[in-house]
Amino acid sequence: MSGKSFDTEILSVGTELLLGHVTNTDARDISEMLSKIGINVRYHTVVGDNPERLRACVEIAKSRADIIITTGGLGPTCDDLTKQILAEAFSLPLVENRAERNYAQAMLPEGCTVFHNNCGTAPGCAFEKDGKTVIMIPGPPKECRAMFTESALPYLQKLSGGQIVSHSLRIFGIGESAVDQMFRDEMDRMTNPTMAPYAKECDCLLQVTAKADTAAEAEEMIRPVMEQAAARLGEYVYGIDVECVEEAVFALMEQNGMTFAAAESCTGGEVSKRFTDIPGASAHFLGGAVTYTNEMKARLLGIDPALIASKGAVSYEVAYEMAARIREISGADIGVGVTGLAGPDGDGVHEVGTVFVSMAAKDGVWVRELHLGTKRTRSFIRRMAGNHVYDMMRRYMTGLKVTA
Amino acid sequence: MSGKSFDTEILSVGTELLLGHVTNTDARDISEMLSKIGINVRYHTVVGDNPERLRACVEIAKSRADIIITTGGLGPTCDDLTKQILAEAFSLPLVENRAERNYAQAMLPEGCTVFHNNCGTAPGCAFEKDGKTVIMIPGPPKECRAMFTESALPYLQKLSGGQIVSHSLRIFGIGESAVDQMFRDEMDRMTNPTMAPYAKECDCLLQVTAKADTAAEAEEMIRPVMEQAAARLGEYVYGIDVECVEEAVFALMEQNGMTFAAAESCTGGEVSKRFTDIPGASAHFLGGAVTYTNEMKARLLGIDPALIASKGAVSYEVAYEMAARIREISGADIGVGVTGLAGPDGDGVHEVGTVFVSMAAKDGVWVRELHLGTKRTRSFIRRMAGNHVYDMMRRYMTGLKVTA
Repeated sequence: MSGKSFDTEILSVGTELLLGHVTNTDARDISEMLSKIGINVRYHTVVGDNPERLRACVEIAKSRADIIITTGGLGPTCDDLTKQILAEAFSLPLVENRAERNYAQAMLPEGCTVFHNNCGTAPGCAFEKDGKTVIMIPGPPKECRAMFTESALPYLQKLSGGQIVSHSLRIFGIGESAVDQMFRDEMDRMTNPTMAPYAKECDCLLQVTAKADTAAEAEEMIRPVMEQAAARLGEYVYGIDVECVEEAVFALMEQNGMTFAAAESCTGGEVSKRFTDIPGASAHFLGGAVTYTNEMKARLLGIDPALIASKGAVSYEVAYEMAARIREISGADIGVGVTGLAGPDGDGVHEVGTVFVSMAAKDGVWVRELHLGTKRTRSFIRRMAGNHVYDMMRRYMTGLKVTA
Repeated sequence: MSGKSFDTEILSVGTELLLGHVTNTDARDISEMLSKIGINVRYHTVVGDNPERLRACVEIAKSRADIIITTGGLGPTCDDLTKQILAEAFSLPLVENRAERNYAQAMLPEGCTVFHNNCGTAPGCAFEKDGKTVIMIPGPPKECRAMFTESALPYLQKLSGGQIVSHSLRIFGIGESAVDQMFRDEMDRMTNPTMAPYAKECDCLLQVTAKADTAAEAEEMIRPVMEQAAARLGEYVYGIDVECVEEAVFALMEQNGMTFAAAESCTGGEVSKRFTDIPGASAHFLGGAVTYTNEMKARLLGIDPALIASKGAVSYEVAYEMAARIREISGADIGVGVTGLAGPDGDGVHEVGTVFVSMAAKDGVWVRELHLGTKRTRSFIRRMAGNHVYDMMRRYMTGLKVTA
């Protein structure tokens, strides 16, 4: 950033983190946002609500980082511990925050930039002193994420004297190492923009980052790189800057006004649950049947018990019927089905990880047979099966071969 | 522990943590296990795969902690960075680990105790030097958790010259502050065992911890305290040492051989998904209907459209019918239903957070009307509604008043 490197430390304050009652998602969230604008996070530190230990941690952070970002310890119940210790460490008096009348009794370091809290009560702040930048953010994850996005990121962007912009291609169907191999040579040659693949739990992404004087210029630099990479990755790209494949499916359904319904066996409601996590899901998701037993497959979906008896509940034929039947019953444009073995126990016929996923639409029914691995966890198999269901829908709605 | 306090630092090594690609669940898992045996975790540190910065972090950890636990940086792809730096820092040579023939090329600090890796390939280890205890564990969460439970915890227990045992009462229906108030006086007086309440996302727990020469003695010390606390908390206790209320429901169903089925609207499959996360769920969960639209409530459950039109989809009457109908269709012992507004949008009639949860059994149908808060997130409302469903089932199966 203007040639200067900004080594950053995230210092999270909270005894609940050290007791293992909560996971430090704040550090993860902030790190992800900073890596997208090219700021190097070098350390995460967690310390309890203890003045002496916090003071010592702040001294260490001052000695090794250019930017110190604290989370937590800002509320009145913890006596505003973080603000007091940071103000002391940088020899700044705490003064009443007169500009922020709605935050009664908010004491903040003199001369700091105040960050409003739109999701809670404790304000955050930022200041620069002794060649360091200090940013203080509340601990509750929702408040932390909102304030960091709305206030801290723009503050850091301004500080850097340049704009860093980053976009990601989200990929399903080929792994991170294949993507890495595909782009290795050009990635090694690139300096600005840069490009890097990252593995996620059940898929991966390719991130392109550029730095320029303005965001518009950075966008201009990124665009051709993204376009070329997307063209090479082709049908494996399911979205740009999305979090998961169901979000991409939701966006496609918003565009084309389509609806779907789900018939689930081994995923036990997870496919429906994931889509309905998205606000506004009700415009596109009609509902589903969780048919965990053979009887329920017959009763809720009307699947012939003789078919289940002859082919088995985990079979191409039953998966086919599940998608076709839930589509018919619901009147949705698309019906999907999942039947398989999530483990840990098998059924004596198939290996754990065997799953049939299916999709029915007005012009056909498609089934994919998956072997997701006998050593995989139940939760991985269920999640991956769901990804395949959404991948089929995404392919169908974009005119690609559904079962590829 | 024998009067000596063991200040602990967890040092996690991995650039992926600093990029925000993964959350540091290892530190949370280890912290939770250590807090249960009374070891004080004072710091978490995360540093990347960088020898200089890791070396500096190890020096800091040596200066402020008695026990240093590292996670990550043990595999061959990271060049066994953690082992090399730790061995250097404690002036121990790395020697070939001849005892562990199945781990080819495993180099480990001379004289260390080797921890087998039953979930992966890289072994862990522990040693004591310069008055410090060092424990190295692999980074992948599954491997970390397994090795820590199987090897590191017993190692630390032995070190402490005593056995620390901890049990928790899991509580739903009253909050952590009420529990705190209820037991404040005696908690202040207690030294061994100790007792403390903790808040979780949608419920809370009361933890009792004792230290003695043997685990059996510690259990003896805990038992009367647990019994008295459970008696005072009464019907609010849903389980001992369980992770969540659906786990308690699963255990009750194992005891009495009962089955259930679910009809879900606003939870969109989450109630079914949560139960089927449990291996063995298929013995008790028959299936369910996710009826996200009024039409699906009629088609899958046979609920009279006139009832929905007159009372509204979010109503006592529709919730009642959902539980009763899914019980009838599935033939399960218990049917449950959920209909409500998870937000962010309302329906013009009810506030966001209004949810009706219901339960039907052979001897009745019960409905709870919930107002979970207009400022709550969609995910909180859905999770809390699910907890109420499971709480009703738990109460029914233990002979308590269902709607209390």
